Amino acid sequence: MNSTKAAAIAPDEAIAFFADTRAQTEALVAPLVPEDLMLQSMEDASPAKWHLAHTTWFFEEFVVRKYLPDYRAIDDRFAFLFNSYYVQAGPRHARDKRGMISRPDNAAVMAYRAHVDEALGSLLGGDRDDGDEIAELVELGCHHEMQHQELLVTDLLHGLSHNPLLPAYRAPEPMPVTGEVPLEFTRREGGLVEIGHDGNGFAYDCEGPRHKTWLEPFAIAQRPVTNRDWIRFMEDGGYENQALWLSDGWACCQREGWDTPLYWWHQDDAWWNYTLRGPQPINPDAPVCHVSYYEADAFARWAGARLPTEAEWEVSFRDQPITGNFLEKSQFRPLPGNGPWGDVWEWTQSPFTPYPGFRPPEGAIGEYNGKFMVNQLVLRGGSCATPAAQMRPTYRTFFYPHQRWQMMGLRLARDL
Amino acid sequence: MNSTKAAAIAPDEAIAFFADTRAQTEALVAPLVPEDLMLQSMEDASPAKWHLAHTTWFFEEFVVRKYLPDYRAIDDRFAFLFNSYYVQAGPRHARDKRGMISRPDNAAVMAYRAHVDEALGSLLGGDRDDGDEIAELVELGCHHEMQHQELLVTDLLHGLSHNPLLPAYRAPEPMPVTGEVPLEFTRREGGLVEIGHDGNGFAYDCEGPRHKTWLEPFAIAQRPVTNRDWIRFMEDGGYENQALWLSDGWACCQREGWDTPLYWWHQDDAWWNYTLRGPQPINPDAPVCHVSYYEADAFARWAGARLPTEAEWEVSFRDQPITGNFLEKSQFRPLPGNGPWGDVWEWTQSPFTPYPGFRPPEGAIGEYNGKFMVNQLVLRGGSCATPAAQMRPTYRTFFYPHQRWQMMGLRLARDL
Amino acid sequence: MNSTKAAAIAPDEAIAFFADTRAQTEALVAPLVPEDLMLQSMEDASPAKWHLAHTTWFFEEFVVRKYLPDYRAIDDRFAFLFNSYYVQAGPRHARDKRGMISRPDNAAVMAYRAHVDEALGSLLGGDRDDGDEIAELVELGCHHEMQHQELLVTDLLHGLSHNPLLPAYRAPEPMPVTGEVPLEFTRREGGLVEIGHDGNGFAYDCEGPRHKTWLEPFAIAQRPVTNRDWIRFMEDGGYENQALWLSDGWACCQREGWDTPLYWWHQDDAWWNYTLRGPQPINPDAPVCHVSYYEADAFARWAGARLPTEAEWEVSFRDQPITGNFLEKSQFRPLPGNGPWGDVWEWTQSPFTPYPGFRPPEGAIGEYNGKFMVNQLVLRGGSCATPAAQMRPTYRTFFYPHQRWQMMGLRLARDL
Amino acid sequence: MNSTKAAAIAPDEAIAFFADTRAQTEALVAPLVPEDLMLQSMEDASPAKWHLAHTTWFFEEFVVRKYLPDYRAIDDRFAFLFNSYYVQAGPRHARDKRGMISRPDNAAVMAYRAHVDEALGSLLGGDRDDGDEIAELVELGCHHEMQHQELLVTDLLHGLSHNPLLPAYRAPEPMPVTGEVPLEFTRREGGLVEIGHDGNGFAYDCEGPRHKTWLEPFAIAQRPVTNRDWIRFMEDGGYENQALWLSDGWACCQREGWDTPLYWWHQDDAWWNYTLRGPQPINPDAPVCHVSYYEADAFARWAGARLPTEAEWEVSFRDQPITGNFLEKSQFRPLPGNGPWGDVWEWTQSPFTPYPGFRPPEGAIGEYNGKFMVNQLVLRGGSCATPAAQMRPTYRTFFYPHQRWQMMGLRLARDL
Repeated sequence: MNSTKAAAIAPDEAIAFFADTRAQTEALVAPLVPEDLMLQSMEDASPAKWHLAHTTWFFEEFVVRKYLPDYRAIDDRFAFLFNSYYVQAGPRHARDKRGMISRPDNAAVMAYRAHVDEALGSLLGGDRDDGDEIAELVELGCHHEMQHQELLVTDLLHGLSHNPLLPAYRAPEPMPVTGEVPLEFTRREGGLVEIGHDGNGFAYDCEGPRHKTWLEPFAIAQRPVTNRDWIRFMEDGGYENQALWLSDGWACCQREGWDTPLYWWHQDDAWWNYTLRGPQPINPDAPVCHVSYYEADAFARWAGARLPTEAEWEVSFRDQPITGNFLEKSQFRPLPGNGPWGDVWEWTQSPFTPYPGFRPPEGAIGEYNGKFMVNQLVLRGGSCATPAAQMRPTYRTFFYPHQRWQMMGLRLARDL
Repeated sequence: MNSTKAAAIAPDEAIAFFADTRAQTEALVAPLVPEDLMLQSMEDASPAKWHLAHTTWFFEEFVVRKYLPDYRAIDDRFAFLFNSYYVQAGPRHARDKRGMISRPDNAAVMAYRAHVDEALGSLLGGDRDDGDEIAELVELGCHHEMQHQELLVTDLLHGLSHNPLLPAYRAPEPMPVTGEVPLEFTRREGGLVEIGHDGNGFAYDCEGPRHKTWLEPFAIAQRPVTNRDWIRFMEDGGYENQALWLSDGWACCQREGWDTPLYWWHQDDAWWNYTLRGPQPINPDAPVCHVSYYEADAFARWAGARLPTEAEWEVSFRDQPITGNFLEKSQFRPLPGNGPWGDVWEWTQSPFTPYPGFRPPEGAIGEYNGKFMVNQLVLRGGSCATPAAQMRPTYRTFFYPHQRWQMMGLRLARDL
Repeated sequence: MNSTKAAAIAPDEAIAFFADTRAQTEALVAPLVPEDLMLQSMEDASPAKWHLAHTTWFFEEFVVRKYLPDYRAIDDRFAFLFNSYYVQAGPRHARDKRGMISRPDNAAVMAYRAHVDEALGSLLGGDRDDGDEIAELVELGCHHEMQHQELLVTDLLHGLSHNPLLPAYRAPEPMPVTGEVPLEFTRREGGLVEIGHDGNGFAYDCEGPRHKTWLEPFAIAQRPVTNRDWIRFMEDGGYENQALWLSDGWACCQREGWDTPLYWWHQDDAWWNYTLRGPQPINPDAPVCHVSYYEADAFARWAGARLPTEAEWEVSFRDQPITGNFLEKSQFRPLPGNGPWGDVWEWTQSPFTPYPGFRPPEGAIGEYNGKFMVNQLVLRGGSCATPAAQMRPTYRTFFYPHQRWQMMGLRLARDL
Repeated sequence: MNSTKAAAIAPDEAIAFFADTRAQTEALVAPLVPEDLMLQSMEDASPAKWHLAHTTWFFEEFVVRKYLPDYRAIDDRFAFLFNSYYVQAGPRHARDKRGMISRPDNAAVMAYRAHVDEALGSLLGGDRDDGDEIAELVELGCHHEMQHQELLVTDLLHGLSHNPLLPAYRAPEPMPVTGEVPLEFTRREGGLVEIGHDGNGFAYDCEGPRHKTWLEPFAIAQRPVTNRDWIRFMEDGGYENQALWLSDGWACCQREGWDTPLYWWHQDDAWWNYTLRGPQPINPDAPVCHVSYYEADAFARWAGARLPTEAEWEVSFRDQPITGNFLEKSQFRPLPGNGPWGDVWEWTQSPFTPYPGFRPPEGAIGEYNGKFMVNQLVLRGGSCATPAAQMRPTYRTFFYPHQRWQMMGLRLARDL
């Protein structure tokens, strides 16, 4: 998870970045009651309160304890409770039991945040020789916290969805009405290209090294697959036709009883879904969301197409501006008519593997991405739950092929 | 769960009983934060908030809706959320997902309680022809709520025990120091005896009918098995000696990795356990608590004895006063030196089966006990979490042989 | 499993009993190919080859090795492979992996049988001081082997039922056609009765001690429930009506998707079942078979009746002759019109618990029944797979309430 | 699974190829008793009898039924029993229940083989216009059968390993004694290379299309990792050091309790393993075998190296002759000193994904490889259980990262 960039962030930039990031997280939980912050609906998801505390622990563990020798923790046991998976940072509380931690309660966690913020403020405000080094770690911690902002939002949706009352996180608001945007493909010549982050500005370790790769000519769609497209697939028996599915995908689909994307149901002759703004009718022209890799792959086969590789995605969209409704201006669900990318993450056909020459950094920080490089697939783009600063053309997020609770959609590609 | 008694409670008694019972429940949750009320650590246990709401639903469903035709519910959907298992009262929310209900939050549940209390108050206060009938149902509802008081306390202990910080529900207080009370057996002649509730005063359906049964002569211990006794069993390899165990018990012990009662650990050459008053050293002379039937049965075999039957227990203790620390004066853990019974529930060797002539009442109320009459075993007595009004010599509580989270102990008996 | 009887079998009787029993077992496997003998379809069932070997091990372990000091085993490792659960007789091979033992193959197991038979023959034929003691153990071993004959047959049926070709163990033969026998109840006065084995002739330990018990007046049906009765229950929605079921029973029924007895299906407007004589149309007047306790209990509730207790069963039928088609003359499926009992085992409502004063014998032999005295229910009677010598009015067989693969049916009773 | 080659096999070549392949399969089962042929130890593995029948079904279904209109099957129901996963060829028997099919017994399956062989002989022997087309399908069927020869051998080893008697499939024979071969790396320049099958001779669909790919410079070891190397890893705590493992790998290792390769144990101060020649001491200089991807990856990290990609493997070894002990001359376990490759399959770090431009053939035949292109990793090379005709530098076999029952080892590579 460390940067591959050449030039460090300046300490005064870090102060502002830190303040903004911390405030944004707290704004996200402002509409919630303490009970909401306890919800953990599956092992993959964490309670909002845990996200509040874990992001704080990250700054405490990797910055404050290291650079502020006389720092006094509010409670030394929080390191055990709020470490996520950093083996080299010590033992951790069981991931599937995070919903069992009623104390510290929310008030105590907010006090923990304030305590660490104050310590970090004193660090960043001082005139120190190692200010650049600290600023760089703080930048990393802010990006880490932004990743957890996205998880907080999607985990919350999953948690609330288990409540038969279907409570709304945010008030319903009308969605723009657009017409159907025709599906058009752009032709790309491929050849020997370079992908990966070039080291200018912040990036995670797994985004580099920048490297050569060979691409055959291909065509790629100019918009994601929409709900309208998906309903056609469903009406054509897509969920019942085993021949469309990968073998593992079919087994998963049968075992889970999938016949729609996550959170969908049919009612009074119409499709509905549960969103952070409560139950909503499906907007046919919004990108389809909450589909697994298995479903995305079956859809592509049904459509006579395929998913793009991550290299194809990167060379196609790296010069196009983000047009989606990112977190800071978020409507908290994908919107129609937003242009090429940024309302939903897009599954690629690329397994998450190391780029040639990848070498994780030393120490606990180096555990960030490398240990997950098996069994997962890369998604590219970003969604309505992604902070703007996380939306980079080189960003590689990754999930297991059966997972659906993130804001996941897809885009089609074809061989030429 | 209906009464088998002859004479109904008077309406004005019901008013006081209702007020006391409701207040007692609320006193139990007073030391808790809203986050504590969300904890559900296993399917067998429920969140405290659910207990608060379910006991209220019981009065709303079986009394208020029936006798107050113009009653307006606070939220009709609560009937779905807070029904437990009454099939005839409609569909129910999944039992293992009760911890996923963040809304209604605690404030809303307390408002629900107040709303139903007010409706019931207006019912009981009125001068009605069916006042006796209502009073009887209210009495039943109060006993039902008292059962949930006990579950609330034990479920809370289980939930909090998953927190590595081991928070205390109540402040630690010193426990009386007593010496070892020698184990003495009383001889009983048996013969043709009668057991079961005789209909005077409240009782649950399964406590009757009163009936004859034949007992061979037997001897029964005058005190429960203590922690000191149990440590001897452990030190003698009781948890490693398969020959002492029932076949199912051994399989369970191996699968779960049991080598002590629930909540125990060894630290600095001493035995400790986690209690509602936080971590505490084991008091050797307190009754052993949190052992399963399988463990109790193995202990009895190790001791060259056996568990009593429920008939043996009833004829032995029905004339002895309760001496345990029941809920209203509770220390929230079993205490030493409290005399014959009442600090821990006592496993008997009797499966929970219908008494001869048992016939459950008609309707949803009749689902109370009859449908559980397989696979469970009867415990007799009462514990430090049991309201005094629940401690009757005829009371039959019942649990599965692997369960340990209730305040469960044992007493020895012998053939003569 | 040891006898409670007063007078031992004579050595020369034991010789004949042994020869007959061993021959009967081998006759049962005569129609099978070696592949059939390997089938293990679930942990509860064992391969026929294992039954052949285990019954032999029993004689080898408890008789031959003890009384014939210079005995040389064919293979010492067989003791590990073919011990079932006798802890005190040493470690055992995992029960659910018995189907993984291809070697010793069938020929080797038959050689093992012959080897032990020869050793035992030399023991029994000799004129020894301890001849009575040996004869008694041999008698026990023969009864043990007869129990395994029954299991061999029912385990085989279960194993073969997993083959979509539905092979027949024995050739189909026509079943007698009878009319519907009306359901009649006999009234019994109850009172203080004695049940249990009196010690004359062979019995297992758990059949005694003979003891007093009190019975209220009751009525008991003169024939088992038939397939015709069961179809009425099914047509009346018995498998869909939760109110008829025990709570654990309903959960089991839903989890397993039960809507008929085991081995039944509907085809061309008729009910069929799979039997040891291949697929057969249901005979409406034969006793219903392959139903669990949960189903039997639900049926009884639907019929406005209940299951009898084991004491009620014993006092009702102990003076009636066996009329069922026991193993030696077996048609290998329950037949209609066979009179009061003996075509199917009958579930009682009695949990399998020790009789007052029960004390298992010392040593491995004592592990026979006592360690199973929890979670199981008693069945009385006997079936078309039960050897005649096992059909005693005091015989208590026992199974878990969800099990259906034995020849299990039921009979109704009522309070008066 | 169809060929990508330009020129078809000649019909007379197909006759000989068919006869050899069928005879080779039967030679493999010659040392077995019918009971051995029934063993199915896990869902991943199939009984030998099933392999005998399934390979026959393949010829019957895809050749005989198609080209011989008056063909009469021995039993039409075999199509259901012996189809593996070809959805478009109809419904199938459950994969994990293959061990439950005692009938057809072995004799009947051999008769089935002879019946189909005869039909195919008459087809191939005739002078037909479509002879080339048939020959090509027969060639495919022979390669298919060779794949099952390898599975038959490895499934058998897994099945027999569950027998505590550890029976030997083949008689023990001494293994060559060699010294330690030093680990040497060869440097490769990489650049824009081509990999994949070029269409000359037989290949499976997933081996093509031949295509360009870019490789950075790398170094690759000249021999596989040996048992001696692996013991060093074990002695250095490799199985206890979480930092060496992928996150999923560590979870798997803990769950399964792995601390050695499959089939290993320690006894009398030496390492042993179970092989097709019975229990054998570990030969330190033989390639390590029966390790999962997770273990291979952890080993490579421990060694300061990595696994090669499949492209790196292919360009490194495509010009080197096979030196391993392939099936036809097999010793049935990896041998030391056999040169660069061919005694064990070698895990690569490449997920099994489609080559650019991959398009599976139409129809059931096209289900061969494409539907498995998720969650699995490619292995290259071949093993002592692989027929020589399957050992091609372009061959891609694939397994899940947790699987160990194939003859799986590894080789190291490094970035330069």
